[in-house]
Amino acid sequence: MIKRLLAEAIGTAFLLIAVVGSGIMAETLTGDTALALLANAVATGAALVVLITTLGPISGAHFNPAVTLAMALRRRIEPAEAAAYILVQIGAGIVGVLLAHLMFETALLQVASTERTGPAQWSSEIIASFGLVFFIFLSVRYRPDAVSWVVGLYITGAYWFTASTSFANPAVTIARSLTDTFSGIAPVHAPAFILAQIIGAVLATGVAAYLAPDPKQDA
Amino acid sequence: MIKRLLAEAIGTAFLLIAVVGSGIMAETLTGDTALALLANAVATGAALVVLITTLGPISGAHFNPAVTLAMALRRRIEPAEAAAYILVQIGAGIVGVLLAHLMFETALLQVASTERTGPAQWSSEIIASFGLVFFIFLSVRYRPDAVSWVVGLYITGAYWFTASTSFANPAVTIARSLTDTFSGIAPVHAPAFILAQIIGAVLATGVAAYLAPDPKQDA
Amino acid sequence: MIKRLLAEAIGTAFLLIAVVGSGIMAETLTGDTALALLANAVATGAALVVLITTLGPISGAHFNPAVTLAMALRRRIEPAEAAAYILVQIGAGIVGVLLAHLMFETALLQVASTERTGPAQWSSEIIASFGLVFFIFLSVRYRPDAVSWVVGLYITGAYWFTASTSFANPAVTIARSLTDTFSGIAPVHAPAFILAQIIGAVLATGVAAYLAPDPKQDA
Amino acid sequence: MIKRLLAEAIGTAFLLIAVVGSGIMAETLTGDTALALLANAVATGAALVVLITTLGPISGAHFNPAVTLAMALRRRIEPAEAAAYILVQIGAGIVGVLLAHLMFETALLQVASTERTGPAQWSSEIIASFGLVFFIFLSVRYRPDAVSWVVGLYITGAYWFTASTSFANPAVTIARSLTDTFSGIAPVHAPAFILAQIIGAVLATGVAAYLAPDPKQDA
Repeated sequence: MIKRLLAEAIGTAFLLIAVVGSGIMAETLTGDTALALLANAVATGAALVVLITTLGPISGAHFNPAVTLAMALRRRIEPAEAAAYILVQIGAGIVGVLLAHLMFETALLQVASTERTGPAQWSSEIIASFGLVFFIFLSVRYRPDAVSWVVGLYITGAYWFTASTSFANPAVTIARSLTDTFSGIAPVHAPAFILAQIIGAVLATGVAAYLAPDPKQDA
Repeated sequence: MIKRLLAEAIGTAFLLIAVVGSGIMAETLTGDTALALLANAVATGAALVVLITTLGPISGAHFNPAVTLAMALRRRIEPAEAAAYILVQIGAGIVGVLLAHLMFETALLQVASTERTGPAQWSSEIIASFGLVFFIFLSVRYRPDAVSWVVGLYITGAYWFTASTSFANPAVTIARSLTDTFSGIAPVHAPAFILAQIIGAVLATGVAAYLAPDPKQDA
Repeated sequence: MIKRLLAEAIGTAFLLIAVVGSGIMAETLTGDTALALLANAVATGAALVVLITTLGPISGAHFNPAVTLAMALRRRIEPAEAAAYILVQIGAGIVGVLLAHLMFETALLQVASTERTGPAQWSSEIIASFGLVFFIFLSVRYRPDAVSWVVGLYITGAYWFTASTSFANPAVTIARSLTDTFSGIAPVHAPAFILAQIIGAVLATGVAAYLAPDPKQDA
Repeated sequence: MIKRLLAEAIGTAFLLIAVVGSGIMAETLTGDTALALLANAVATGAALVVLITTLGPISGAHFNPAVTLAMALRRRIEPAEAAAYILVQIGAGIVGVLLAHLMFETALLQVASTERTGPAQWSSEIIASFGLVFFIFLSVRYRPDAVSWVVGLYITGAYWFTASTSFANPAVTIARSLTDTFSGIAPVHAPAFILAQIIGAVLATGVAAYLAPDPKQDA
């Protein structure tokens, strides 16, 4: 159990380093926002493939309370363990932001000011989280060796095809409320994002349970 | 059958979200058209790998009436089922465009105004669709586990190496006639694109049947 | 034999469509040469993965007289068949350039004017071709399922890390002498490129034969 | 043993050609530093996948004294062989820089002038090297066939998410002190980088030994 929580911690911290760090680097180097977002998307996607490939065999590589919730709904993780996963993910995400700030010589403690609100943003997060959880369940069921690529490529694409740039992760949302850089989100707007993410994840769990039932249920 | 149609619907809707959504995001963020096309191509290619990897085991992951037609010509899908696939692909593609418009706060119902016509565009669509269907058949025959990568990388490349940016899909063409954004095509120009796509797909089916016959035909 | 030659023809034609077509598209859309080269490199690399994955099981997917020569030196292809391969590759490469010109509405027959000459360019082609043939031999020996990725990623990188943008292919060099666009090479400079490519390929064949001998030679 | 050292030499030389050559090409073609870094990151990552896929079966494909040190600490390589590996990596890295200079027609012998110093840079190198060695150990243990992708994608991402652009390799650091181009590092700042890399690698070796013990230790 400690090994699994440590794996979740290292993975979520590195995920936030990737998201926040590459955002700072990109906005420092260019004035073209599309180019910055491309770098941000490529760095995040690449990191996700690495993290899920290497840490998946230990902890399942959730790094995301919405995914852990969905796995608990499908009874693939015990409720107590799920709660521990989620606490570790939130804490490690914050540590990741602090490490990114350390590396880029900015104030360690920050509060984000970027406005991200309104129905367009919320519908984006519902769709982004629906897709993330849905494709994870299908991949786990039919192509388990491809999960890391499915998640990494999905997020790389979803940075572009959702208006919110696809946070799709409550731990990431909380952590990004603590950085006033490219990838920040004002804390007052975080709760609605998290609610939208939970809605999307629960919907996806239902549809995936219908489309990709557990093998034993097939028998 | 319902599960297969649902898989085609979700996949085609997400494909259009990826194509249209990333196009809107890109043209909003940059004035450099090449950079916008690069983001559009990367997001679409990444989405295709995800969609085909996860939904292929359920429905075959056509998401494309030209592919369904080609599979029907090779008798890999029954005519009645093929017809149902195609109707679902067209309907779900339109839903995907509406969802992209919802996320990006633009009018839900639009009519495209982008001119895409002339022999150069049509020859591009014939070649693009020939390649898509041809490489799908060869991959299904010799490297079935690689189909999702073959399609995703082919389209990423074909955005650049055809003058039409490689629609290569009648359902995508119809859906994109309903968005007046980066990826739109004026409805009056859609029929010629679709005809070119069918020509390319039929040609590819013939050449692939010669180069990669079914295993039983080898015996 | 006819099937193998047809596979070489389709593959080499598509390779040139990818190289020349994406170059035309890129230089049309942007004034930033680095961005154009990035699109050119991504489109070419993606196409190579697709072409080698799908056509490799039929013909070996050489698409390159330098590779065919290297395979003949290691006695993996008969001299007569190698000669046929090379003739088909050269002819199909030229057809690919014509198809790219057709799609992009430029004159079908062109003569390139881009100067590519001098020791820096030649040493680039020796190194580029050495690497291409060397890594192909090692991958064929130890990781045959990865050859398409090895070649696609190698060329994507080598567009950037060699001063010549890594032609590394005599059929591609001849074909590119017939397009006066982004990817062209003045015909008078083509022979030195081809000579450098042959030198690199022969050197690589020798080193690879030492480092990765045939399994039977191990016994 | 000679074959293994030759594999390390060719791989490390090509790695430096990729890093330094793509940096020179990129800064020559564009004034946008983010675009230059993106090309540099893509070319380096692509080269690493190729080099580790093809040379890994021969030498293990370290190309990095920090990795060799970590492997020696886990007793996966004998001390004498590790010393030979490290000497060859350093020498071959320098040869790679010379070959890049040869291809790009710049002075063969250069001394870098780029300042890279201070706690932000050093913490970046500790984190970058920790991640590199940690994810290599986990991948070798649980997904050995994915090591080349893990390393290539990690470095592609880490170019962006660390402030130092993630050297993470003492041989690369020494070699890059000898090029006064995009990827250079002033020699006076190299020792602190190397110390930080060793610290990160040793820390990672400890954590990985706990999280991913050798199979026999499980018994």
